[in-house]
Amino acid sequence: MMCVYRIEYQGVPRHVVEEGGRWRLVEGDIFARWTPGDTLADAPRHFLPPVLPSKIVAIGLNYREHAAEQGKAVPGEPMMFLKPPTAVVGPGEAIVLPGWAGRIDHEAEVGVVIGRTARQVGEADALTYVFGVTCVNDVTARDLQKKDVQYTRAKGFDTFAPIGPCIATGLDLGSPIRIEGLVNGEPRQSSSTADLIFGIPRLIAHISAVMTLLPGDIISTGTPAGVGPLKPGDLVTVKIEGVGELTNPVR
Amino acid sequence: MMCVYRIEYQGVPRHVVEEGGRWRLVEGDIFARWTPGDTLADAPRHFLPPVLPSKIVAIGLNYREHAAEQGKAVPGEPMMFLKPPTAVVGPGEAIVLPGWAGRIDHEAEVGVVIGRTARQVGEADALTYVFGVTCVNDVTARDLQKKDVQYTRAKGFDTFAPIGPCIATGLDLGSPIRIEGLVNGEPRQSSSTADLIFGIPRLIAHISAVMTLLPGDIISTGTPAGVGPLKPGDLVTVKIEGVGELTNPVR
Repeated sequence: MMCVYRIEYQGVPRHVVEEGGRWRLVEGDIFARWTPGDTLADAPRHFLPPVLPSKIVAIGLNYREHAAEQGKAVPGEPMMFLKPPTAVVGPGEAIVLPGWAGRIDHEAEVGVVIGRTARQVGEADALTYVFGVTCVNDVTARDLQKKDVQYTRAKGFDTFAPIGPCIATGLDLGSPIRIEGLVNGEPRQSSSTADLIFGIPRLIAHISAVMTLLPGDIISTGTPAGVGPLKPGDLVTVKIEGVGELTNPVR
Repeated sequence: MMCVYRIEYQGVPRHVVEEGGRWRLVEGDIFARWTPGDTLADAPRHFLPPVLPSKIVAIGLNYREHAAEQGKAVPGEPMMFLKPPTAVVGPGEAIVLPGWAGRIDHEAEVGVVIGRTARQVGEADALTYVFGVTCVNDVTARDLQKKDVQYTRAKGFDTFAPIGPCIATGLDLGSPIRIEGLVNGEPRQSSSTADLIFGIPRLIAHISAVMTLLPGDIISTGTPAGVGPLKPGDLVTVKIEGVGELTNPVR
């Protein structure tokens, strides 16, 4: 298992890999051909978003208890929407609440990062298109979501897609992956991918039957029950075992 | 007035500008600093999409008669959704109908191409953020749109965002711009930006209050009445005065 981070190194964004406490620069394209380069003298202290996705395909109502808390029926097939790339921020960056938009909720989600171009992929092969897993906070303006019907505005504000801190490769996606959401250290959401209504292979097949997924694109697989409002000064954390913690202040 | 095209030139995608019948290569970044370079000996015959947008923000129900034909109320503020960049094709490229998705409609739209980073822009300044205008066909799987509620799947198939043939700069966006949609040369849609419920400055202000618009991003301003189904073998055209004709075969 290896974790891929992105840092600013000598003024330039660079991928680095961490394995067993050793940090090495990536030479080349992490999604194509690359080799491990120089070893960093110290562990980095500040991280950029681990990838800049060309698109984030997010899934609605993919945990039964969350559908219930939203008063919505479980959909018959995966329900997808897009978050714009301009919403992405990294660990530690502020989630900025638009003052006029009403209630803004956290939504802890398991993000699947695509490793190679996926077009009309079958479920049986789907996991071979996965590069790794990251934490996603699918921040949502709940009042606007209800008002607008289309989710685009409610889910699309700048800073509403924190991702990171790394992309963990080599996780066993066939086994349950635990996910937690915390606000100011207090647990609010706790579940695992075993509770997904539509599992990761089904999501990849469903989405790639419509739109080609490119290396670095992210599928945010849906949020478990326990979503709740954020207020300025909060610290919100998404925690996935094997990936780490994505914490963002709220402003 | 100048038209910006993109072509393959010596095996590489390049922007070219056409002015008064003279075609010149663009040296530099068309959205930043550039100079006109070599003159082409002949007018190009094949065009790429004039830009690869990082996002396409499309507007629903922005003409009264189209809202009526869809049996929908006119919204109280602009209704936005996203089309993924992977849906983009250029002039002449096939729109591929997914066999399983039911009825697929053309939607001729005026596309506004952003020229510089726009964040929380006021209506009064909005037009200074516009680079130019292009034709957009917001191809839509009508049955899936009704079934899914969220528009993402219905609007997001590969090839469902033909754009081009060029970006026309210097048009007077304060005056009505005529737009037409034709199938096999027969007029189906005909209107002008004078009929937009929410005009271009309002759209830029509304969207940029939520998400930052980047150079090359496209706002597709909505379709007038007259949408209808496409079938394999059709040739569908979006025509905007001052921009030209965007024609795509249907497969």
